[in-house]
Amino acid sequence: MMKHVTTLTVRPYECDSYGHVNHAVYVNYLEHARMQYLHAANFDYKGLIRSGFFTFITRVDISYRSPAFADDVLEIETEPEDLRKVRGVMHQVVRRGEIVIAEAHVHWCVVNAEGRPSRPPSAFDMGGMAP
Amino acid sequence: MMKHVTTLTVRPYECDSYGHVNHAVYVNYLEHARMQYLHAANFDYKGLIRSGFFTFITRVDISYRSPAFADDVLEIETEPEDLRKVRGVMHQVVRRGEIVIAEAHVHWCVVNAEGRPSRPPSAFDMGGMAP
Amino acid sequence: MMKHVTTLTVRPYECDSYGHVNHAVYVNYLEHARMQYLHAANFDYKGLIRSGFFTFITRVDISYRSPAFADDVLEIETEPEDLRKVRGVMHQVVRRGEIVIAEAHVHWCVVNAEGRPSRPPSAFDMGGMAP
Amino acid sequence: MMKHVTTLTVRPYECDSYGHVNHAVYVNYLEHARMQYLHAANFDYKGLIRSGFFTFITRVDISYRSPAFADDVLEIETEPEDLRKVRGVMHQVVRRGEIVIAEAHVHWCVVNAEGRPSRPPSAFDMGGMAP
Repeated sequence: MMKHVTTLTVRPYECDSYGHVNHAVYVNYLEHARMQYLHAANFDYKGLIRSGFFTFITRVDISYRSPAFADDVLEIETEPEDLRKVRGVMHQVVRRGEIVIAEAHVHWCVVNAEGRPSRPPSAFDMGGMAP
Repeated sequence: MMKHVTTLTVRPYECDSYGHVNHAVYVNYLEHARMQYLHAANFDYKGLIRSGFFTFITRVDISYRSPAFADDVLEIETEPEDLRKVRGVMHQVVRRGEIVIAEAHVHWCVVNAEGRPSRPPSAFDMGGMAP
Repeated sequence: MMKHVTTLTVRPYECDSYGHVNHAVYVNYLEHARMQYLHAANFDYKGLIRSGFFTFITRVDISYRSPAFADDVLEIETEPEDLRKVRGVMHQVVRRGEIVIAEAHVHWCVVNAEGRPSRPPSAFDMGGMAP
Repeated sequence: MMKHVTTLTVRPYECDSYGHVNHAVYVNYLEHARMQYLHAANFDYKGLIRSGFFTFITRVDISYRSPAFADDVLEIETEPEDLRKVRGVMHQVVRRGEIVIAEAHVHWCVVNAEGRPSRPPSAFDMGGMAP
């Protein structure tokens, strides 16, 4: 399955009073990196939304290994760990050079307009995201 | 050990394009609730900082059960699950009435100015937070 | 016209690496206070949205007088300065006790689904917000 | 005086329940663009901090012209409008292609550790930022 890397630079307002990237901000970074993954996989996320489905994050398990600071250039690696038609798990690692800053397992499912886990039209098969 | 409940109201800017509280925002809510817990336990957090120590979050494992919306009144229950001198785990549950919105286990440790896990002066014994 | 005061407590994650409330966060605080104003005025904001209209902020002119810090209790006073059917200006002042922290003039207009300034059904007359 | 352009891509979590970039987020974008301006001008901002001074934003006057959406590529132009030794005004324009999204005047001053407007060592003359 595809492995994808997004690069971003820490912005000063993402840092807290310790001068570290605030620990909640990584959850945003991970979402950004997953969207970049979907773009790279040519997954039609806007089409999924128009079809009346969306993805719901059911669990984020993130471990913080080392702090990051303003202006740091971070690489976020995103790789599916389990990819089914309605749910899956992404493994994501945030690095600054060789140093692991954070590592996460993010669980998601596809839900219908009522918010119930539900299989989307086959064109939006998440299992089809892999190249 | 002490169980503590904080109440907050969802602000509109905390919601994303689905109209749901953005999933990263809960990580901020949990931090706020833990600080309220420390206040209620008379823990001198500013004194800890002045002594050259601070707390570092090492892991957040959060499960999202149900969405929350603007103006929702949420209760966040915070209870230590494991409370040692240098590290511990807090169990936190976010509810709207009877409905569980999210549930988390948050792991922390006390670190010194160099960021290494380190035992603070005994006045700041986290094990002493319980009433 | 009605003057309304909202109280909130600064949360630690709203502070930046200077230990001050980040200057963008006040823009969020002001939005929160305006929504509280609308609630207090019994303005049916959700009804406005259901009717296919919404409010668009066209200008925020905010002056920062003094920093605020984590745990500060802030009062935000909101008062219409100019209130027409399609547009208006709110005057908002953020205070900690007697100290003025920030002061803003916020310009808004009602727009239709295409985003064009447009008069909503008379039930949603903004001019009718005043008690 | 130097004119500088920063490019950024809107991240999904920066959008609110209308699907628009939240209006407070632009204030963060502007800060990011000003820091990029300072980098480009070889201004030693970290040195300024180490010397016991920092910059305080005294006023942001921002007009919103058109909404921006997730994945939009935005250009932010930053240009000093008035640049003195202790205070100044930056003019910033956010564009998507030819469309102006927002335009702002941002007033700042240099303050000492007590937060009082104060002239920094001449090495940090803001007036010296221009190339």
